[in-house]
Amino acid sequence: MAISLGDLAKQVGCELVGDADATVSGVASLGRATPESLSFLSSPVYKPQLASTAAAAVILRAEDAEGCPTAALIHNNPYACYARAADLVCPAPIYEPGVHASAVVSASATVAASAHIAAGVVIGDGSSIGENTYVGPGCIIATNCSVGDDGHLVANVTVVRDVIIGKRCILHPGVVIGCDGFGNAMTPEGWVKVPQLGGVRAGDDVEIGANTTIDRGALDDTIIEDGVRIDNLVHIAHNVKVGAHTAIAAQCGFAGSAVIGKRCMFAGHSGTVGHVTVCDDVILSAKTMITKDVTEPGVYAGSFAAEPSRHWNKQVARFRRLEKLIQRVGQLEKDKQ
Amino acid sequence: MAISLGDLAKQVGCELVGDADATVSGVASLGRATPESLSFLSSPVYKPQLASTAAAAVILRAEDAEGCPTAALIHNNPYACYARAADLVCPAPIYEPGVHASAVVSASATVAASAHIAAGVVIGDGSSIGENTYVGPGCIIATNCSVGDDGHLVANVTVVRDVIIGKRCILHPGVVIGCDGFGNAMTPEGWVKVPQLGGVRAGDDVEIGANTTIDRGALDDTIIEDGVRIDNLVHIAHNVKVGAHTAIAAQCGFAGSAVIGKRCMFAGHSGTVGHVTVCDDVILSAKTMITKDVTEPGVYAGSFAAEPSRHWNKQVARFRRLEKLIQRVGQLEKDKQ
Amino acid sequence: MAISLGDLAKQVGCELVGDADATVSGVASLGRATPESLSFLSSPVYKPQLASTAAAAVILRAEDAEGCPTAALIHNNPYACYARAADLVCPAPIYEPGVHASAVVSASATVAASAHIAAGVVIGDGSSIGENTYVGPGCIIATNCSVGDDGHLVANVTVVRDVIIGKRCILHPGVVIGCDGFGNAMTPEGWVKVPQLGGVRAGDDVEIGANTTIDRGALDDTIIEDGVRIDNLVHIAHNVKVGAHTAIAAQCGFAGSAVIGKRCMFAGHSGTVGHVTVCDDVILSAKTMITKDVTEPGVYAGSFAAEPSRHWNKQVARFRRLEKLIQRVGQLEKDKQ
Repeated sequence: MAISLGDLAKQVGCELVGDADATVSGVASLGRATPESLSFLSSPVYKPQLASTAAAAVILRAEDAEGCPTAALIHNNPYACYARAADLVCPAPIYEPGVHASAVVSASATVAASAHIAAGVVIGDGSSIGENTYVGPGCIIATNCSVGDDGHLVANVTVVRDVIIGKRCILHPGVVIGCDGFGNAMTPEGWVKVPQLGGVRAGDDVEIGANTTIDRGALDDTIIEDGVRIDNLVHIAHNVKVGAHTAIAAQCGFAGSAVIGKRCMFAGHSGTVGHVTVCDDVILSAKTMITKDVTEPGVYAGSFAAEPSRHWNKQVARFRRLEKLIQRVGQLEKDKQ
Repeated sequence: MAISLGDLAKQVGCELVGDADATVSGVASLGRATPESLSFLSSPVYKPQLASTAAAAVILRAEDAEGCPTAALIHNNPYACYARAADLVCPAPIYEPGVHASAVVSASATVAASAHIAAGVVIGDGSSIGENTYVGPGCIIATNCSVGDDGHLVANVTVVRDVIIGKRCILHPGVVIGCDGFGNAMTPEGWVKVPQLGGVRAGDDVEIGANTTIDRGALDDTIIEDGVRIDNLVHIAHNVKVGAHTAIAAQCGFAGSAVIGKRCMFAGHSGTVGHVTVCDDVILSAKTMITKDVTEPGVYAGSFAAEPSRHWNKQVARFRRLEKLIQRVGQLEKDKQ
Repeated sequence: MAISLGDLAKQVGCELVGDADATVSGVASLGRATPESLSFLSSPVYKPQLASTAAAAVILRAEDAEGCPTAALIHNNPYACYARAADLVCPAPIYEPGVHASAVVSASATVAASAHIAAGVVIGDGSSIGENTYVGPGCIIATNCSVGDDGHLVANVTVVRDVIIGKRCILHPGVVIGCDGFGNAMTPEGWVKVPQLGGVRAGDDVEIGANTTIDRGALDDTIIEDGVRIDNLVHIAHNVKVGAHTAIAAQCGFAGSAVIGKRCMFAGHSGTVGHVTVCDDVILSAKTMITKDVTEPGVYAGSFAAEPSRHWNKQVARFRRLEKLIQRVGQLEKDKQ
């Protein structure tokens, strides 16, 4: 959508250095921009590309503006400013309200008149869909679930049972939320399934990535607070609580009853064991597992980086002979006496 | 459902200390129970909450009964007993038998008259659904598959081809079972797909978590024995065999032809490489990988816990300089001679 | 399908030692073969089974032919040759062209007349399906996507937006391709979603395993080159590029903008952090993470194998006391002077 730089600057709160009547109609990286593009410079890695960009305008920090060969939109957080601007230049599609003829909606379900219910959707007993919410093709909103206003369930999402989802939430394809937690009691005859009777409560502005699973609680609810961002293939077990604005990268896993603070960041393949508490503002490195309570904000790690396997194998062999080395040092100390 | 404590004690095999005519109509944790609730005490962690619980009755061990302020249901395995009791107090919903008008059932498929086939289900050629089995919305039971009696396929489950599922199995949303194994033969022109022609055989009382995938065998079948419990996002490759009553936590992975014993327990993000055999009664820690045969029951581990990254980075640096340290010790030993 | 050994040898390019008119009508491993079976010997592990096999014919290397008690089909790559032969002996089912009555196809979508569109499929605006392509039950091909000729989308696949898939690609159930990347900009008020506006381009002969997710690019496209083979539950983030003929085992993850070379092999649970470049012909061990550019082909590793946890815990304790050991050695060196 073509938008003038003047309008854009006003709407996203930038200072414009350049022609307010010039327009942009798309977005692109500095290196691929055309004279119709809005671009941005956030990471210094891309600074060398600024001088030669063909963009119509670049969102950047004041200190980078001097080197900008085109119109500059100055903001102290260019990445967030770009995110808002891109939403204006490339607006999301608008969907007609209504329920597709192939959708199956329970007589006891409630669907807002402004909601869009796509082909093949099933909405079960006692569930409700909020105003302006988009429920994409193949989504199942089963029993006693509520999806708030302005939500977006892309496609093939399964919302199982006793799930309350806030406003402006985005659920990507393959998300399963409200499935049973993994509760089993051992007996001499084998496992007995422990009924999972809690629900899931997700706040506002939560985004959940493709094929992520969030279990319902065993008795109390699993809780995802406002503004939490979850990537693909993440596992959140029963009775986990994830604090507001925490971001969780792909393939992380959180075992049952873990309590995660606010504004934490978990890199890929990381996670926690069950029944631990992690305070606010913890950053966890990739492939690392938290095994006990974390009470101090900061960066935590516990995994090794890949190296050529012939080196790695030697390191592992030395590691396995550490006891021997300790004994040799002990002998040297003894001999010295 | 309201049930008298007398009836409950009889049905789950407890000794009741209290009024047999009193009733419970819900379940709750000790701390959140109301006078209508049945609760339980299994882990000593929760013992301090016993004295002040408002529950109508608590399932607990004989040695804990003295401190119980309410009716006591005495059992030597309170957790398993609670699981059975909760099923009576909060029974699963009952579904009407029949096939939803929007379901598509092949003329060569067989569906028991007592089965419930929900909206949007597709049942393909040569497949069969057993007595009282619930096939939830969006499930696909494709070709030549069999789901036994009293099964529960929650929603959006995909049973692909040549899969035999036993009685009383529960498959959660997003489960894919019977998909092709990962078989590729290298040639100078690139990979050639190796046809996957085996099936999957799952026993009775198997539960499979959301978005878990179980591949069909290459030639012979992939096998999941009776009573196996699998959590979410687990990968079971072609020709794996999982022994009876083994429990597998979320995000575990088992590579091709691994043979896993009975009553094993795998913590999250753990697994095995291919073509290994793991004996019965093995417990594997989180994020750990079995790389060779395990012949002794017991607990196995191989991963590090998270610690502050400045500490961790120093540890890693020391680890990488182990060779240097070994040389220094060798020099000291040499000098001594 | 019964096929004569003479025809088979001709079609897959083998030398036949045996009766050209004898037929096979199935495939089996050496140990389970019957007189109707074609079998093969590739790994020396199975050589002891050759002498007693009941197979009608065995595909094997020239050097193994002497010990073959049945007809021999001689080829220098028996596994790849078997793969091609199995396709002839056990051909994939043939599907009738046409669109199932329950499928919902947008007026602006294009479906080749020879394509098979199964029950419950939804094909959205501007999408196209190529010649002879099979789109299985429950698949969603949403907006502005293209699936090339001779493709096979098994069931419940979700192709989200701006995705171009080449010829002869196989997508297993639960695959999500073209979902939003994980792009978030931090602000004092919380995360702002960064619009994901790129697409995904997958080449020819790509296979993608069950419940794998491939994100669309943020601005430019995510790229999967020809012949790439991806197993189940893999995560490929936005703007990743995977080089031709690379094979990726289950549960691997690749963070944003990683560039992976050609003919790489990633074992299960491995992967890379974002913004790294991995050269061609790199092999990565299970559970290992690449954290910086890899410029030399070869095998890389960085994870430990499981061992009895009492041993492992002692090793970890020694590892944590390495600093102490280094100090002791330092003291010994000092004392010596």
